[in-house]
Amino acid sequence: MCKASWHERAAAKVADTASKIPPHWRLTPNDLQRARETKDLTGPFIESFLSSEEISITRLASDALVSKIASRSLTSLEVATAYCKTAAIAHQINNCLHEIFFDKALERAAELDAYLENHGTTLGPLHGLPVSLKDQFHVKGIDTTMGYVGWINTYQGISSSDKIHKTESQVVTDLLSQGAILYCKTSLPQTLMYGETINNIIGQTLNPLNQRLSCGGSSGGEAALQALHGSSVGLGTDIGGSVRIPAAFCGTYSLKPTPKRLPYGNIADTNPGQRSYPATVGVMGTSLAALKLVAKGLLDTEPWLRDPDVVPIPWRTDIETETLARADEKGRAIPDARPLKIGILYNDGYMTPHPPITRGLHIVSRALESAGHKVVPWDPPSHKAAADIHLAFLVSDGGHDVHKQLALSGEALIEPLRNVFEFKDPISAIEIQDLSIAGRNACAAYYDYWNSRSADDGQDVDAFVMPVAPHAAVIPGCYLYTGYTEVVNLLDYSACVVPVTRADKEVDVLDEGFQPLNEMDKKNWELYDKEKYDGAPVGLQIVCRKWEEEKIWAVGKIVDAVLREYERREGSIA
Amino acid sequence: MCKASWHERAAAKVADTASKIPPHWRLTPNDLQRARETKDLTGPFIESFLSSEEISITRLASDALVSKIASRSLTSLEVATAYCKTAAIAHQINNCLHEIFFDKALERAAELDAYLENHGTTLGPLHGLPVSLKDQFHVKGIDTTMGYVGWINTYQGISSSDKIHKTESQVVTDLLSQGAILYCKTSLPQTLMYGETINNIIGQTLNPLNQRLSCGGSSGGEAALQALHGSSVGLGTDIGGSVRIPAAFCGTYSLKPTPKRLPYGNIADTNPGQRSYPATVGVMGTSLAALKLVAKGLLDTEPWLRDPDVVPIPWRTDIETETLARADEKGRAIPDARPLKIGILYNDGYMTPHPPITRGLHIVSRALESAGHKVVPWDPPSHKAAADIHLAFLVSDGGHDVHKQLALSGEALIEPLRNVFEFKDPISAIEIQDLSIAGRNACAAYYDYWNSRSADDGQDVDAFVMPVAPHAAVIPGCYLYTGYTEVVNLLDYSACVVPVTRADKEVDVLDEGFQPLNEMDKKNWELYDKEKYDGAPVGLQIVCRKWEEEKIWAVGKIVDAVLREYERREGSIA
Repeated sequence: MCKASWHERAAAKVADTASKIPPHWRLTPNDLQRARETKDLTGPFIESFLSSEEISITRLASDALVSKIASRSLTSLEVATAYCKTAAIAHQINNCLHEIFFDKALERAAELDAYLENHGTTLGPLHGLPVSLKDQFHVKGIDTTMGYVGWINTYQGISSSDKIHKTESQVVTDLLSQGAILYCKTSLPQTLMYGETINNIIGQTLNPLNQRLSCGGSSGGEAALQALHGSSVGLGTDIGGSVRIPAAFCGTYSLKPTPKRLPYGNIADTNPGQRSYPATVGVMGTSLAALKLVAKGLLDTEPWLRDPDVVPIPWRTDIETETLARADEKGRAIPDARPLKIGILYNDGYMTPHPPITRGLHIVSRALESAGHKVVPWDPPSHKAAADIHLAFLVSDGGHDVHKQLALSGEALIEPLRNVFEFKDPISAIEIQDLSIAGRNACAAYYDYWNSRSADDGQDVDAFVMPVAPHAAVIPGCYLYTGYTEVVNLLDYSACVVPVTRADKEVDVLDEGFQPLNEMDKKNWELYDKEKYDGAPVGLQIVCRKWEEEKIWAVGKIVDAVLREYERREGSIA
Repeated sequence: MCKASWHERAAAKVADTASKIPPHWRLTPNDLQRARETKDLTGPFIESFLSSEEISITRLASDALVSKIASRSLTSLEVATAYCKTAAIAHQINNCLHEIFFDKALERAAELDAYLENHGTTLGPLHGLPVSLKDQFHVKGIDTTMGYVGWINTYQGISSSDKIHKTESQVVTDLLSQGAILYCKTSLPQTLMYGETINNIIGQTLNPLNQRLSCGGSSGGEAALQALHGSSVGLGTDIGGSVRIPAAFCGTYSLKPTPKRLPYGNIADTNPGQRSYPATVGVMGTSLAALKLVAKGLLDTEPWLRDPDVVPIPWRTDIETETLARADEKGRAIPDARPLKIGILYNDGYMTPHPPITRGLHIVSRALESAGHKVVPWDPPSHKAAADIHLAFLVSDGGHDVHKQLALSGEALIEPLRNVFEFKDPISAIEIQDLSIAGRNACAAYYDYWNSRSADDGQDVDAFVMPVAPHAAVIPGCYLYTGYTEVVNLLDYSACVVPVTRADKEVDVLDEGFQPLNEMDKKNWELYDKEKYDGAPVGLQIVCRKWEEEKIWAVGKIVDAVLREYERREGSIA
């Protein structure tokens, strides 16, 4: 007997996934070739494979979808079919899926239609909404490989487990109880610990808006699928930027809650025992409305009664409403209310963002000021130092868990992570305790800074805006530094990503007088290539304190309205 | 130059503390001798040193104190004077204080009286309330030794620190902002990790109700002082039972919240970097009202805006009110409301509680049933296994922190802890991750069990009652097993201790047919001595899920009412 090599197992898995696409949704070799040669696969390109009805459905935001299904303007089956078909095409041209289960989705859609017909009411607030899932969430009957060859057809690498294809993440149970339809799982990088999407099963997922660039990671397939409108909303996870980076790179939206706000029970993970700075479930979508719809929908199930890790804070509509009441529908400050007071961080002092990012920050600043809000400088304690503490936790086991999963199949670690996950001795409990104190002190110092920023006018800073990365959607292999996102994980803050602009080779040129802060800063700066980056989405993150998901969502909505209005007024956003 | 020995430094500290007692409150050698010879120092004994006005003030519960001060029936100065004097006498006969600062207290009381006079309103809900503090909380101008000789006149052992006597725990700041008066810090065991109160500075604090027994620990001085009515309310901390054990042993009340509900910022601690299962601030008092008054008073300051660790859950009056509405003022179930459904755990399967404890549990069961509530068996996943996981975290650094503090002065580790804190290598990050997963799984299994207990009648179990320890207030040196409290720390549940009965040599006799579960069980059983234990308080803990402080408090109030009514009806509680 000869066991299949990992290459063969990976290839078989890819073929198996592809075989789940119904023949009538398969593209011709000619179409596939055309896709490879096209820079931007979104909009007209992918829509050329869809009917006008399918296009109009997949262009709808999640809240419109559930409302049209509830009012019977659309059936669940029509919606699910449109999304399954679009996802099928998206995967063929963009390689963004790990798992396909359209059959289950269409069956459930029919059941939901029957339910609505029989009961005269929906099953829940997500009735009929197709929700895509990063391939960390367990769905009954479906593989979860998390990008490891050794996990194919196992339960998290255990081939003798009685849980294989029989377990369900709590969040999956909760989505289903609220009426969601599940239909696919999206690609991610091996180990989850990288800002691009590459693994030894599917290879790489590129940016559908500009195939010379990465879609980001780790929830990269999710954002790529959404940019192609193969999903209006989905779940990712974030331990170092993983729902923020892909959204920023693909021009979509995401919400990174404080860990323990949404249930993380029964989700496959890297280093599941590293619970000092755990990952959080995040919501990603083509609209801001999607983020609230799903986050609130999950909280409405009172997940804290089933998952002991979840803190019992329901969606606080009062906080959302109070924040929204401070601006009109175009985001303009309301004369008799407090305007927003927003900090802007242009540079974390370690790595200078490329010109498109800096321009994006200036756009936000100008747009907010012109809408009557207050913009203040943000000069907090060192982000780099905080991010370093965070990274030390991620590698505290000396790469033990990662190398254990790799050894299951003999596959290699993906190249960009070979330094980070060098296999070595774990650190000791004393070192963990010292790091924990350093982390705690960094958080306390940041709160002190935040509180000190009300000294000027007696008004608390509502949120601050900063880069998600020191570059727009990155050139593959060029992601050098995740400090811009990791700092937020060390602080456990709530964050929301909104699209701001796109890189423009005409205006985003290197400053000739640039003085690098250090060698890494120089290296990143030299990696800027205005031609390659041209057209790359620029998304920025808005950050609130811990547990402020309602507020960050409402602030995001105001900032988004301000940006869209600014864009309308200025012609193009520049 | 010859540095003082640790014996000399400890003796000088004790003398210095004693010198803070004003001469007119000092007892005669004759009185002190009489105290040594008296079994029960509470009630008539200590009251023989007080005026009738002082007795009536110190017998008041905390809520009555603040209400009488607010309505000007009493002045803050009268109240503070009565408590300082009682604490002064308590310390002389019971050795329960580490720090005395009556001068500051009386000065502040006068200021508060002037404030009320000038503003016509109180400073806050704790206006004028004397609050005692376990000697882990930093108060400006005052030592925090935490029972370590090497910490005398330092900042947590650092003699060069510019924080010496200059730092303040956040909870202290918050208490002061709400109008509290601070006047003393209470004794605790060296390392905090013991269920009795003994250290090399003050020696030992015994149980004021029965001097042959321990007052418990680690917040032992706090409960002893309260049993002597030298405090109506105070703050302790709990990482393994430390606010529950002393309350149960001294016949008082305590609330152990879920960690991160109350602020733990700037509190001296053992292993401050062990943040997987951190300690929590707890409230201890002579009444249930005291616990809510102070917990709510702290939450009303929105501590989460200053301490990033605190979860922003205000005191939820709706939960409190809904729970209280299920019983009348005597705790009887209200016919049209859901009765309480309470689990009772008699034995954790590892160590059988002594007869007084088992009788206490039967009293609670009968009293609840006779008041119309539901009592159900409670047979959860292994408490011992959960407690073992918890203990592994407490010693994960191989005793490094404890031995570092001991080395500052050369003092010895207290005898009962020599096995627990044997100095050895710390465990590794991988072992911590494995333990973290085991802890997470234990919590999840317990939630599953809890949820399964509604299957019989569709009603969720509100809380369960169980021993705090396998014995009543313990014979010094005989505390063998802290699993009954540590399990609750592993689960992070909210708990409330209420006094139930007292050991009675006439009825609490050993069962002749007792079969020990194991060697340790046999050992504990053999340590029962009905003569020595006679009169020892029996308090039990009521336990709710995580984050249910309002509910546990309200359930505690109903159980307490039921017990007091049962006691009234049955003559004595038996």
